[in-house]
Amino acid sequence: MSTNKMWGGRFQSGPADIMREITPSIDFDKRLWAEDLAGSRAHIRMLASEGIVPRGDAETILKGLAQIEAEITGGQFAFKRELEDIHLNIEARLAELIGPVAGKLHTARSRNDQVATDFRLWVRGACDRADQGLRALQQALFAQAEKHVETIMPGFTHMQPAQPITFGHHLLAYVEMFGRDRGRFTDAKARMNESPLGAAALAGTSFPIDRDATALAMGFARPMRNSMDAISARDFALEYLAACAIAATNLSRLAGELVQWSTPAFGFVRLSDAFTTGSSIMPQKRNPDAAELVRGKTGRVLGDFVALATVIKGLVLTYGTDLQEDKERVFDAADTIELCLAAMAAMVADLTADPAKMRAAAEPGFPTATDLADWVVRVLKKPFREAHHIAGSIVSRAESQGVTLDKLPLAEMQAVEPGITGEVFAVLSLDASVHSRMSLGGTAPARIKEQIRYWRERLV
Amino acid sequence: MSTNKMWGGRFQSGPADIMREITPSIDFDKRLWAEDLAGSRAHIRMLASEGIVPRGDAETILKGLAQIEAEITGGQFAFKRELEDIHLNIEARLAELIGPVAGKLHTARSRNDQVATDFRLWVRGACDRADQGLRALQQALFAQAEKHVETIMPGFTHMQPAQPITFGHHLLAYVEMFGRDRGRFTDAKARMNESPLGAAALAGTSFPIDRDATALAMGFARPMRNSMDAISARDFALEYLAACAIAATNLSRLAGELVQWSTPAFGFVRLSDAFTTGSSIMPQKRNPDAAELVRGKTGRVLGDFVALATVIKGLVLTYGTDLQEDKERVFDAADTIELCLAAMAAMVADLTADPAKMRAAAEPGFPTATDLADWVVRVLKKPFREAHHIAGSIVSRAESQGVTLDKLPLAEMQAVEPGITGEVFAVLSLDASVHSRMSLGGTAPARIKEQIRYWRERLV
Amino acid sequence: MSTNKMWGGRFQSGPADIMREITPSIDFDKRLWAEDLAGSRAHIRMLASEGIVPRGDAETILKGLAQIEAEITGGQFAFKRELEDIHLNIEARLAELIGPVAGKLHTARSRNDQVATDFRLWVRGACDRADQGLRALQQALFAQAEKHVETIMPGFTHMQPAQPITFGHHLLAYVEMFGRDRGRFTDAKARMNESPLGAAALAGTSFPIDRDATALAMGFARPMRNSMDAISARDFALEYLAACAIAATNLSRLAGELVQWSTPAFGFVRLSDAFTTGSSIMPQKRNPDAAELVRGKTGRVLGDFVALATVIKGLVLTYGTDLQEDKERVFDAADTIELCLAAMAAMVADLTADPAKMRAAAEPGFPTATDLADWVVRVLKKPFREAHHIAGSIVSRAESQGVTLDKLPLAEMQAVEPGITGEVFAVLSLDASVHSRMSLGGTAPARIKEQIRYWRERLV
Amino acid sequence: MSTNKMWGGRFQSGPADIMREITPSIDFDKRLWAEDLAGSRAHIRMLASEGIVPRGDAETILKGLAQIEAEITGGQFAFKRELEDIHLNIEARLAELIGPVAGKLHTARSRNDQVATDFRLWVRGACDRADQGLRALQQALFAQAEKHVETIMPGFTHMQPAQPITFGHHLLAYVEMFGRDRGRFTDAKARMNESPLGAAALAGTSFPIDRDATALAMGFARPMRNSMDAISARDFALEYLAACAIAATNLSRLAGELVQWSTPAFGFVRLSDAFTTGSSIMPQKRNPDAAELVRGKTGRVLGDFVALATVIKGLVLTYGTDLQEDKERVFDAADTIELCLAAMAAMVADLTADPAKMRAAAEPGFPTATDLADWVVRVLKKPFREAHHIAGSIVSRAESQGVTLDKLPLAEMQAVEPGITGEVFAVLSLDASVHSRMSLGGTAPARIKEQIRYWRERLV
Repeated sequence: MSTNKMWGGRFQSGPADIMREITPSIDFDKRLWAEDLAGSRAHIRMLASEGIVPRGDAETILKGLAQIEAEITGGQFAFKRELEDIHLNIEARLAELIGPVAGKLHTARSRNDQVATDFRLWVRGACDRADQGLRALQQALFAQAEKHVETIMPGFTHMQPAQPITFGHHLLAYVEMFGRDRGRFTDAKARMNESPLGAAALAGTSFPIDRDATALAMGFARPMRNSMDAISARDFALEYLAACAIAATNLSRLAGELVQWSTPAFGFVRLSDAFTTGSSIMPQKRNPDAAELVRGKTGRVLGDFVALATVIKGLVLTYGTDLQEDKERVFDAADTIELCLAAMAAMVADLTADPAKMRAAAEPGFPTATDLADWVVRVLKKPFREAHHIAGSIVSRAESQGVTLDKLPLAEMQAVEPGITGEVFAVLSLDASVHSRMSLGGTAPARIKEQIRYWRERLV
Repeated sequence: MSTNKMWGGRFQSGPADIMREITPSIDFDKRLWAEDLAGSRAHIRMLASEGIVPRGDAETILKGLAQIEAEITGGQFAFKRELEDIHLNIEARLAELIGPVAGKLHTARSRNDQVATDFRLWVRGACDRADQGLRALQQALFAQAEKHVETIMPGFTHMQPAQPITFGHHLLAYVEMFGRDRGRFTDAKARMNESPLGAAALAGTSFPIDRDATALAMGFARPMRNSMDAISARDFALEYLAACAIAATNLSRLAGELVQWSTPAFGFVRLSDAFTTGSSIMPQKRNPDAAELVRGKTGRVLGDFVALATVIKGLVLTYGTDLQEDKERVFDAADTIELCLAAMAAMVADLTADPAKMRAAAEPGFPTATDLADWVVRVLKKPFREAHHIAGSIVSRAESQGVTLDKLPLAEMQAVEPGITGEVFAVLSLDASVHSRMSLGGTAPARIKEQIRYWRERLV
Repeated sequence: MSTNKMWGGRFQSGPADIMREITPSIDFDKRLWAEDLAGSRAHIRMLASEGIVPRGDAETILKGLAQIEAEITGGQFAFKRELEDIHLNIEARLAELIGPVAGKLHTARSRNDQVATDFRLWVRGACDRADQGLRALQQALFAQAEKHVETIMPGFTHMQPAQPITFGHHLLAYVEMFGRDRGRFTDAKARMNESPLGAAALAGTSFPIDRDATALAMGFARPMRNSMDAISARDFALEYLAACAIAATNLSRLAGELVQWSTPAFGFVRLSDAFTTGSSIMPQKRNPDAAELVRGKTGRVLGDFVALATVIKGLVLTYGTDLQEDKERVFDAADTIELCLAAMAAMVADLTADPAKMRAAAEPGFPTATDLADWVVRVLKKPFREAHHIAGSIVSRAESQGVTLDKLPLAEMQAVEPGITGEVFAVLSLDASVHSRMSLGGTAPARIKEQIRYWRERLV
Repeated sequence: MSTNKMWGGRFQSGPADIMREITPSIDFDKRLWAEDLAGSRAHIRMLASEGIVPRGDAETILKGLAQIEAEITGGQFAFKRELEDIHLNIEARLAELIGPVAGKLHTARSRNDQVATDFRLWVRGACDRADQGLRALQQALFAQAEKHVETIMPGFTHMQPAQPITFGHHLLAYVEMFGRDRGRFTDAKARMNESPLGAAALAGTSFPIDRDATALAMGFARPMRNSMDAISARDFALEYLAACAIAATNLSRLAGELVQWSTPAFGFVRLSDAFTTGSSIMPQKRNPDAAELVRGKTGRVLGDFVALATVIKGLVLTYGTDLQEDKERVFDAADTIELCLAAMAAMVADLTADPAKMRAAAEPGFPTATDLADWVVRVLKKPFREAHHIAGSIVSRAESQGVTLDKLPLAEMQAVEPGITGEVFAVLSLDASVHSRMSLGGTAPARIKEQIRYWRERLV
């Protein structure tokens, strides 16, 4: 059965060769097979319930669909480019299997609402998978954070060591970020979880269908209220892509940290052989390939969003074939984000921190200068800005003498601010600094443990 | 007081000229003045409550802030580029007004958590404004839809007339779309509504601050749980930009319809003089400028998202000056989306539909072919695919005779399918077609009225 | 031979499963096989010439490479994911075929310069293919333009008819645009046509290689001057993607015209059955699918540019695995642009213009108002702005009487401007208007014919 | 004189308030004033030469334009939003100054070709400015490179030290990149250097104008061949933006290096106080703000390209108001790229390298492993892959003993490969390695000096 016949009797000649290249979507939209079958089952059951199609015919169709499912899962289904897309492939096979009664499946349904339904189901599933991938990554981060509640490392701003923090604190910041990413997928899923089925070509149908029934059967919260919107809308796909793109920026940040932490100058973490590769000419390298790949793939997901937004931006209602671009962009982003999440979770679980190198990196650079300034405020009751100047001047002296703040003679400090006493040394060590940051969310291990408790309840 | 002094005593020379060009953000971040004052008030009140700053000093500071507010709203405040940003401008003015006690405001606070707080407050407000703008646009669409529940026009797919629908149905599809856009802003706002204040530079502070109190004072749902996340995260800005970009694609679609509907070949709507402009050389033109501007500005909002995603993608924790780019992108997107929403609401309210032209455009092209096919299924009990072929062949005959379907002699139809009777003509008119589409969400006026009721409760 | 062995003896365990998913590029980079062989041949011949490798070994290697080529072109080559990429696949097969001597091919070469060379060769070829595709499209446009030098249609601004033009004029505007697109590919090719081979891992090599010889052998203009640049640079790929993205915007504009011209309200062109498809439920539709697909694919190419720019933006020198993303983006853009160019050329060749509908659409809307204003300037010597006002007022009268300008009674015109005489009617017809626009590049058929001559020399 | 009057007599009511917000472009397009005057001067002189306008009137107009120029450069010109854009502002002022004769300037010209001409002139100038900025940056890099021809540092791949190189080599790689960026601006400028003036509204004009003369007067190479193309095309702006976006990725890479090299863990370079800033709470920080700002602004330029490409993608011929978006995107990109180039040139000139830290970083990580493998190939005549395995095994031994390769006892090496002799130590030092990479473009100082000579001729 040719596509030609599919289109109806009106077309006298077939599509040109170039059309055979550009038109078919079966190479990618065959991924919608399960959703297509789910939609067809819901639809034919409803048609039978409403008496639009005889119950016997419906059962014949359901058997045919079951056989098609078996063929696809068994790898025997022959997807054909000349049948253009997944819908016509299944439709044609159904007609082969059960004869003309197959046609009744298409009563009160159009390819327009069929594709909108299939795709929405698929993206809904992708939201779930993204959520699970993010959760697994949170778990991996959490497990490392639990081990490093007290492991001191430099906290950076501007890639400059700023104040001592703990590695657990740093990792939990990413747990928070990926938690919000999960929220975006959850919200997107809830918003898209409405059924387009029954919108028909665009205007609805004169058959007395029950859209609530099909929506329920497919797990949708309700039917979409407006049939033209049901056919035209792809904001659900854009929202999914936006959530992917934002999650990808967070993944890229973490990947960038792994790359940086792995460079010998830092040496904060070591990835095992499983997650690094060598070079064809430099045998000594431990290249953090997986982290670089994750970082590199961010652009791709962003590109997917740009691509689809650009398409949709230019369309009037309702359907235009331009929308055929929606699926490849979403499939690409979904494959990418799911792979990146899995790779990142595995890397995080795999990494070994080097607390000694972390602490060594936290020592220089006068990281307790803020503690000194705060001490001057607290003890000497100086206004903050003045205390800041005092601390700055003391740092200058320490720098010119080549010592850390806690090694600078008291006299040098008193030359700047005579009120300073020996008690100041109590706040100038890394450990004292970290433990003192007791504000909610701060780096004091006691506060980190609060976060650990919070996330343990939700992740473990 | 020079920025030099702001940085502390350590810097011996001032910034180079080029730095004076590239560094200051005051030209744009002065828009954060209200948020900056709100944050400072919440902070100083909390510092006083906790006994960190004497109550008298806090009152002096609050008076100073009140005067600054008066100066800014009165237009007397002198924003200075050499003071870099809104925070230092206000800080310096406060010091001028009340002397060194001003410095106490900065106890237990850093520019890092200050800017994160101010910006989050601003974006939260932008979510509200976008929601209001979308609501006003929905109201304008709703008001037009109410008038055109029964106004027949062609429903298009592929920019080809497909089936008759009503103008009210078409407009309500956009009400749905903009409804989901509102949902995205609402969700974004809820997710971002957590307070970064108290994260200090990145690690928290040793002062016994009460972050719940400041969060509450600023209307945040709670403090952020992790101080490093509080400083580093800009996913809230990305999510806002993504919501803007998606809304902009919907706006662009509607704007594209207005441009198309206004072209004489369609003539479906007429925009008043207020929303069209002439040409310097072609006096007869009615250019739908505002619609074109809205359509054109979509790219800009998408570009804003790309810009910020690209920035954030490349950053490790916590703060980097790269993030200074966040505000201009968000301000630009907010200004753009708010202007576009206002312009679109005004245009929709302004437009006059031309029902005669709409109906005339719906007549040709055999728009009731589907109705014919459906009749063949329903009455003659043919399988859908066969009915489809029959309808296709009858259309071919009508086309070659140059008549519409309801003008084709019965004999011609019977030559294709002998079972067809004269009753078929009852479904071949535009009105019959439209009224027959009684499925939920369909174009039958009875169904449109359901949507009207639904939205009246929510919009009017 | 496992990848493990490829990396050398240092890695004790194999890559984790997830790495097996994320790392291999062979699924897409096998497209570089011909370039990889070309590079290897140039390299081994040079090594032999320079006495670095014995001539006999070189010949053995060349025979092995010839057999590999035969296997690949014959479809017998087994690409293996565990061998990661095209380079290692060919390398491993060569070792199977000729034994350890195969290793000598990698003397003074690294995968870094190898991949840079292969990819540069591929993109160079893609520039040529884009140029040829653009030329074919120009030829198709030219052939239609030749037929329609005098076919009058409305010229649009703001999608409003503005002034009469000819269809040939309109089509030739696109010939100009695609001509500039060709120039961009030509310039990109010239700029990228330098050889990275011999840069080795990044620092060059101590073997006495002859980079001029290998550059010459591969058709490069010269070797790249700096080995680190040779390894790191991907601006050539970005420039190719930018040229594709810009060409895609031009393609999208033309595709948008075809969609619009095909809508019944315009009816300017008719695409044959070969380039339109039907609908599963609306047998009467002629959907301009191919044009919509071309329009829709613009976003994709733009997304490819965004994706790669985002990747490269974040990299320090020299190579990072992030760059593995470069090939898929370029392949996708190349496939897309080449398919779109072919589809568009075929559609343009296929389309049938409807001169009657074009002319009919040019009549209303007072398209000769400018001609009227110009006549007032020329004959009545009024300043341009005053003439413009006069023409505007006369249009208002014609509009309120429902007549075209050339049907408006002279008395009506004289009521606005008494100096107007009956001679004015000579400029108010469509044909007079078109023929009068004799400025260089104008729509007068005599001027169109100049462009026809210009392009015939270059395209036919 | 109101815009209302500008549009002609046909519009009875003024634009709505929202239109007053969205329509005017004068706030940004006043930057085109010089180009607008240049175009008007060329036009009026030509009109006089051709006898279309009396010579006396032309002189009056030229005097008026001269006065307007004086007013603008003197800061006395009152730009008015109600006059919409720069063209109408100048036109209205000219009418005030010289009366109705001003109107003659608009003979045979439309705002459409006027804006296309002005904008093309501006972008042409922006290409020159970008070229100059890139040249200055190349000069700064060159000057540093000259000083560091022999300064050894690690060459990185995957952010892992790979092989020793020199700092001069590294810097010259960027000189190459920015050289290609210059080529892109040069090519873009050459391609856009054609005059749209005389295309009038879109169809040309019936006045006997001389487009060659106006093109020549404005420094264009020739008039554009097709008037519709002249009005519609904005690919010149896209090409400029693409060149900016690609240059921005190169700038971002270099900025990223500066940020990384400035972090204490590397410490390769020190930026002076002029290019770093402190923190409000951490007095010891040297934040490489300018480098971060440059890095951050890359996204913005990419966003500008995306924005305009998205706009143009959706337009049919000829002009649509959507195109009003073109100028802001280009101005923003131009301001950004020019500022970033200046900042980067200044930073590069300012930086002080720390050769000791660079060398120290090059020592660990077995950076001469490749040299060892190459020695095994050259001296022991082993196939490359085998030599690679040998080197890998020797590195494992050195790593487990915690020594560098040149400190590993010969016996350890011989345990892996008995043929290795003491001569191998001659290639295992950093200096030996660097000096041995004598291939063209390699890191050997003799080769670097070749590049220095090449660039000195072109830059100094």
